[in-house]
Amino acid sequence: MNRFQTRINNVRTYMKKHEMDSVLIFNPDHQYFLTGFKALMYSRPIILAIGENESTFVIPSLEEAHANHVAHVDRLHVYYEYEVEKGFTHYVDAVKQLVEGRFIKKVGTDKQTAPIGLLESIVSPTIEIADVSSFLVEARFCKDKEEIDAIRESSRWINKAVQVSLAHIQSGVSELEIDEKGNSYLYREIPKVHPEATIQLLGMSPSGKERSIMPHVFSNARKLEEGDVMIHTRQVGLNGYRTELERTVFIGKPTSEQERAFSAMLEAQLAAIEALKPGVRAGDIDDVARAILKREGYGEYAVHRTGHGIGLSPHEEPYVRFDNDLILEKDMVFTIEPGIYIPNVGGFRHSDTVAITDNGCEWLTNYPNTLEELCFPATK
Amino acid sequence: MNRFQTRINNVRTYMKKHEMDSVLIFNPDHQYFLTGFKALMYSRPIILAIGENESTFVIPSLEEAHANHVAHVDRLHVYYEYEVEKGFTHYVDAVKQLVEGRFIKKVGTDKQTAPIGLLESIVSPTIEIADVSSFLVEARFCKDKEEIDAIRESSRWINKAVQVSLAHIQSGVSELEIDEKGNSYLYREIPKVHPEATIQLLGMSPSGKERSIMPHVFSNARKLEEGDVMIHTRQVGLNGYRTELERTVFIGKPTSEQERAFSAMLEAQLAAIEALKPGVRAGDIDDVARAILKREGYGEYAVHRTGHGIGLSPHEEPYVRFDNDLILEKDMVFTIEPGIYIPNVGGFRHSDTVAITDNGCEWLTNYPNTLEELCFPATK
Repeated sequence: MNRFQTRINNVRTYMKKHEMDSVLIFNPDHQYFLTGFKALMYSRPIILAIGENESTFVIPSLEEAHANHVAHVDRLHVYYEYEVEKGFTHYVDAVKQLVEGRFIKKVGTDKQTAPIGLLESIVSPTIEIADVSSFLVEARFCKDKEEIDAIRESSRWINKAVQVSLAHIQSGVSELEIDEKGNSYLYREIPKVHPEATIQLLGMSPSGKERSIMPHVFSNARKLEEGDVMIHTRQVGLNGYRTELERTVFIGKPTSEQERAFSAMLEAQLAAIEALKPGVRAGDIDDVARAILKREGYGEYAVHRTGHGIGLSPHEEPYVRFDNDLILEKDMVFTIEPGIYIPNVGGFRHSDTVAITDNGCEWLTNYPNTLEELCFPATK
Repeated sequence: MNRFQTRINNVRTYMKKHEMDSVLIFNPDHQYFLTGFKALMYSRPIILAIGENESTFVIPSLEEAHANHVAHVDRLHVYYEYEVEKGFTHYVDAVKQLVEGRFIKKVGTDKQTAPIGLLESIVSPTIEIADVSSFLVEARFCKDKEEIDAIRESSRWINKAVQVSLAHIQSGVSELEIDEKGNSYLYREIPKVHPEATIQLLGMSPSGKERSIMPHVFSNARKLEEGDVMIHTRQVGLNGYRTELERTVFIGKPTSEQERAFSAMLEAQLAAIEALKPGVRAGDIDDVARAILKREGYGEYAVHRTGHGIGLSPHEEPYVRFDNDLILEKDMVFTIEPGIYIPNVGGFRHSDTVAITDNGCEWLTNYPNTLEELCFPATK
């Protein structure tokens, strides 16, 4: 039995236990996890239906060839964008026919994603709609060996990409150019080693006091200047499995205020990573980082959680938040990235991707992290 | 009154007409259309609430600085990822407090996107949930002058990017490298002219008989070979406004079968574009293209619609499908891209972006489209 069959069987066991007649799954990453298929675009809905005896994709005709190549399901239930003799030209009709007679009392769906409009049009109000979101989210918590190897390999590449990007730092170079150097390297080099891989890249490098305090903004054409702080951030995915690496860097010399903030951030990150091991509460990891930032007077500037799970989604559960009571287990993979964003001083965040081991964690990303190593001359 | 205020006022007029107490909007592109704010990542939910007198973003604390910069709303209702004295640490609680007392009889939402789980947790079952999806989708059908200018400018760049990418065609170069050359050009050159712009790129270049028949697959490391057909596809967005340009190209000389398919595809595309003007039914444009493909014996290989609207979303309504009775209007912007995908022969599709004018349409993209111009030597 391959990994996809095993995963779908686990869904069936859950279905039976909770007396669901059938399950409809909308979240593309859950679909990928269960079948190995992910589309590039979802303007035409793609729905995974798991019944007692059959797994089926409701899928537009233009995805048929692609899904036939890779999707581990029993059947494709295709809908068309032209008149067909037998068959459907609207996905709602295709889903309706597929589930006809299958929904009797209770249907499961991933309520976190499932759009209310579509459910209303295919599920009669007499049928109970149960949530399978938590089950699917939790099924993805612990990665198997193959998945961790995939993230380890993505990490090997991200280490190099960050190096390539940061090597181009100097006054006058734009944020976008910094990102682009690493991207270009990855698009050129990965295929030499992984000829069949799909590559997912995400990056941003907000720079300067004003932009670096926004944790999530696209890079723009702002040019680096002597005295800038910049947060260079990256995700790299190989065949869907993602890793994350982020570094706070300086162009020229930081101010003493910036030095102090950097040092608190780094101490918080290292302490949180040091605290990671099976049996620890997720919220306690956040506490470890936050306590250090508070002690240094930065509590109000630490506006986000300490980290998140990573794998198929750019951010996925478990989240390393103060109120998460989840107990960590071996083979969970996290980013650890406490950040502080101080008006008129700048933003400070490193992120590394780590996998929980038997008694600690393994750093999957690996890149210099000290102030000395991350100050770059403004001119070469 | 700025464009965002006007758009939000239009939502209010619709709300009042349909006696809705309030509207909650989940789709990020609708949110951007109404407020000018779009996040980079949505693992933390962001919800736009429009009441009679106030527009509000429910937003995570890490987006606060960014939203303060750009979002045209009356108020940010922030939720936090750390303990706060007054305030919320979970978005569901934040939304609940915001809508408290506001939902009396009927609430509107974009049911195409709104997840059933969240709605169930904030809207009591005694309150009617009405759909505002169609209203919002239709509000985006006709672009204003500023929007068309933005798409025209994106198009100017995409024309150049395709040229740069295709100039690198030769045996031994990979699909990913073809994409990367154009991307690299755009990241380098756009900022020189638009220093503040965000840039969205999307591209794929499936090549060879096996891969080019899959309309939507990510590029991979497959290397071009003499005799290949390849569909080079691109979207470029500047500050959110997107354009699309796609060309079917040959490495070396096509077979006579490929020549025939290419010629049918091009005839279908040009005829469909020629037929575009105000007053015509969208489905009739699809018919024009499809009739030509059928006449040439390719009916069964034309697996997708003839085109789609484009603007803030990579694909958006109106769709140019056989069953769409919508009557076209001036200032709608479409891609026109009939495609055929023939096993053992290859895939054939050009796409151009056009804007409907008073009595026809304007080509926004502009690139050579004939067979002669799109055959590239396998060696230089």
